[in-house]
Amino acid sequence: MSTIGNGKIRAEEVVARCRAMASFSQDANSIRRTFLSPPMRDCHRALGKWLVEAGAEVTVDAAGNLRAFYAAKEPRAPRLLLGSHLDTVPNAGAYDGVLGVVVAVALLEGLRGRRLPFAIEVVGFSEEEGVRFGMPFIGSRALVGRLDEEVLNCRDADGVSIRTAIKDFGLDPAEIPRAVLKADTLAYLEFHIEQGPVLESLGRPLGVVEAIAGQTRMEITFLGRANHAGTTPMHLRRDAIAAAAEWIIAVERSAQVDPGLVATVGQMEARPGATNVIAGEARVSLDLRHRSDDTRLRAARLLVGLAEEIAARRGLTLRRSELLSQPAVDMDSFLIHEIEEAMRKRGCQPHRMVSGAGHDAMILSEKVPVAMIFLRTPGGISHDPAESVETGDVAKSLECGFELLDQLASSSGFHERVSRA
Amino acid sequence: MSTIGNGKIRAEEVVARCRAMASFSQDANSIRRTFLSPPMRDCHRALGKWLVEAGAEVTVDAAGNLRAFYAAKEPRAPRLLLGSHLDTVPNAGAYDGVLGVVVAVALLEGLRGRRLPFAIEVVGFSEEEGVRFGMPFIGSRALVGRLDEEVLNCRDADGVSIRTAIKDFGLDPAEIPRAVLKADTLAYLEFHIEQGPVLESLGRPLGVVEAIAGQTRMEITFLGRANHAGTTPMHLRRDAIAAAAEWIIAVERSAQVDPGLVATVGQMEARPGATNVIAGEARVSLDLRHRSDDTRLRAARLLVGLAEEIAARRGLTLRRSELLSQPAVDMDSFLIHEIEEAMRKRGCQPHRMVSGAGHDAMILSEKVPVAMIFLRTPGGISHDPAESVETGDVAKSLECGFELLDQLASSSGFHERVSRA
Repeated sequence: MSTIGNGKIRAEEVVARCRAMASFSQDANSIRRTFLSPPMRDCHRALGKWLVEAGAEVTVDAAGNLRAFYAAKEPRAPRLLLGSHLDTVPNAGAYDGVLGVVVAVALLEGLRGRRLPFAIEVVGFSEEEGVRFGMPFIGSRALVGRLDEEVLNCRDADGVSIRTAIKDFGLDPAEIPRAVLKADTLAYLEFHIEQGPVLESLGRPLGVVEAIAGQTRMEITFLGRANHAGTTPMHLRRDAIAAAAEWIIAVERSAQVDPGLVATVGQMEARPGATNVIAGEARVSLDLRHRSDDTRLRAARLLVGLAEEIAARRGLTLRRSELLSQPAVDMDSFLIHEIEEAMRKRGCQPHRMVSGAGHDAMILSEKVPVAMIFLRTPGGISHDPAESVETGDVAKSLECGFELLDQLASSSGFHERVSRA
Repeated sequence: MSTIGNGKIRAEEVVARCRAMASFSQDANSIRRTFLSPPMRDCHRALGKWLVEAGAEVTVDAAGNLRAFYAAKEPRAPRLLLGSHLDTVPNAGAYDGVLGVVVAVALLEGLRGRRLPFAIEVVGFSEEEGVRFGMPFIGSRALVGRLDEEVLNCRDADGVSIRTAIKDFGLDPAEIPRAVLKADTLAYLEFHIEQGPVLESLGRPLGVVEAIAGQTRMEITFLGRANHAGTTPMHLRRDAIAAAAEWIIAVERSAQVDPGLVATVGQMEARPGATNVIAGEARVSLDLRHRSDDTRLRAARLLVGLAEEIAARRGLTLRRSELLSQPAVDMDSFLIHEIEEAMRKRGCQPHRMVSGAGHDAMILSEKVPVAMIFLRTPGGISHDPAESVETGDVAKSLECGFELLDQLASSSGFHERVSRA
C-alpha cells in the first residue's frame, strides 16, 4: 500500500490530532468532555472535516454518535465499523477513546479514495465513560437498540435527562431507532490504548484482545463486636478489622494462584473507627474479573465461602451484597487470526490479551462480531493528564491497520459474511 | 466487723445510690456528667450528705474534686485515700467511676464512727474521662500538682476554659495548690468496674490490679500506586490495602504469641477508595499495651520493622507517626498482698490482672503508693447504658474492703509508712 512509506509522518499527525481534540474541553485547564457537552460539537466538526476530505459522508445520529460512511466499490456491499468513543473522564488524558477514532480517520485517509469490497463506517461514540449520567455506553447502546426509555430518563447532576440533552444539542430522540446497526454490518474493530502496564512490561507495541473480562462486584461487611482496645484480651475479641484483613489477603492470594484472575479490594472502612476501640464493623469491596465466567463465578463463590469461614471461626457474622455480575465477551476468532497475521507481516509479534476494562466493543458484540487492538500505554497510566502513547506504536498500529484492511479486502470469506443482527 | 451480716442490704444500697446518681445528668434520656457541669453539684450534694452522716468533713477543692475527711483516732495520724471519678462519658452507664466513690462512702458508713489508726479521705474526682476539654484526669492532676497554666487554658467546645469553668462553679483557681495531696498520705485505693470481660470469663467477682499497662499509639500509612482494578495484573500492583491487610494480621499475631500484649488496629481507611481502583494509600492505626514498657517498646519496634519489610517487598513506601508512648504504672506490692489476703479471708480467690485502661490511680502513683480493685463487669460492657454490676459482686467488694481496712488498721507497718511525696 502506497501509504506505508510516510507512516511516521501520519503517526505524528494522529498524535497531534489527539492533542488538538484535547483542547475541546468543558474545563479550562484540564480535559473533560461529557455526553453532548458544547466541546463535543467542536470535536464533531474537526473530525467531520477530515472525514469528508477522506471521502466519507458524515452525520451525527440521534444518540450523538458521529457516523461517517465511506462507500465500497459496489453499492450494496456490507460494511466494516471502525471506531471508539469521543467522551472523556474528568481530568482526562488525550488518548483514551479519541485515539481509536483518529486512527480510523487516518486509515480512511490512507486509502486515498481507493474503494474496498466492503464499505467502512467510522463511529465516534458519544458516551462510553458514564460520567455525566452515571450511565456508561450511551452511544453504543443506541447501535444495538438498547437506548430505551429507562436510559433516556437518566438525569445528570443538574436534573437534565439524556432525552433533554439530546434535544438541547439539536438532535431528535424520535430518530434514535435509526441509529441501530444496519443488517449489512460485518464487524466492529476498535483501536484503544491498553490503559494497563502489560504491553509495556512485555516490550510489545500492540496487543490483540481475545476477550473482555467478565466482572463481579461485591460488598462484604464483617460484623463483630466493638470493644475497649485496652481491656479486651486478644482471645475474647471479635475484631471486624482483623477478620477483613485475613480475607483481603485471601482475595489477593486467590488471584495470584489463578492465572488471568484479577481480584481487588479497593475500599475498606471500619466502625467505630477509633484508635482505642476494637472495630465492630468492617466493610470491604471486591472487584473480580476473568475472561471465563465459570472461573470468575467459581472464584466468587470460593471467596464468599472463605469470608463465611473466617467470620464463623472468629465469632463474627457476615453481610454481603452482589452489586454486579457482568459476563465476559469473546472477540471474534476470525478477526483475531486476521489481526495476528497482519501484525506478523508488519514485524509485530502478536500478543493475545484479555481486556480487564469494558469498552464499546463489549456492547456491539451483542449484535456483530467485534475485535480490538490495544496500543501500549506508557507506565500503564490512563484517566490522568500524564496519559501518553509512543508515536512509533501509533505508526505500528496504522501499519497493521492498513495490512488488515488489505487482508480483509482480499478475503472472500470476510465480506460475504452477514451480520449476526 | 459487725457490718458484714447486712452486706447484701448495703450492696443493694450501693447499687441504688449509683442509679440515683445517674439521674444527675446533662442529658434528658441518657447519662452525661462532665467537668463541673450543673448536675455535678447535685452529685456533690447527695454524696456530701451521706459522707457527713458517716462522720466526715466535706469540701469541694478548687479543681472541683469532692474531698471528705474522716479523722483517725489520733489527730496527727496519716491518711488513706479512697475514691474514684464522678464524671462520665456521653451516653454512659451508671457505674464507671461513681461506683468507686459510693463504695468508699459505704466503707466509711460501715465503720459506724469507729476511728482507725489512720484517717480516711474519700475523693470524688471531678474529671477523669476528658470529655469536656479533651483533657483527661483534671481532678487527679490537681492532687499531684500538675493542674498547671497550660491545662487550665484548655477550652471546651463553647470556648470556655477550665479556669473559667472553675470560677463559674463558684470555686477559686488561685486555691488549686491547696488541692495537692498532703504529705501524710499513705496510699490511694480505688474500686472500679473492670470495663472488660476477663473476670467474667474466669467466673471471679473481683480482681486485684497489679499494673496499669503502658500504651503506644501510632499511625501507619502504606503508600503504593492507585491503578485500574481491571487492567493491572496482580504481579504489577502496588496495592496499599493488601499491604495494610498483611500488617494487620501480623499485629494480631504478635499479640497472640506475646502473653499480656494487646495490639489493636481500630482504624483503617484507603484512598481513592473505589471498588474498581487499586488503593494507592492505606492508613491504619495501632494501639499497643503491656504492663512491661520493655515488652511494649520491643513489640512496637518489631511491628514497625514488619511494616517496613512488607512495604519494601511490595514496592511501597511507609509513612508513620507515633502519637503516644505512655509508660506502665505498677501498683504498690504491699497493698496488692494485703488486698489478696483480704480476698482470701472473704472466700474470694484472688486474681491479679493488668488494667488496660488508664485510671486516676495512674496519676496519683506519681506521688503515693496506689492500688486498685476491679469488679466483674457483665459482658465486659462499659461506656454504654447497658453497663451493669452484680449486687453480689458489690457485696464481695464491700466485704473485702472492710477486711482490708481491718488488716491495715492492725498493720503497724502500714500506718507508719510515709508518703513518697
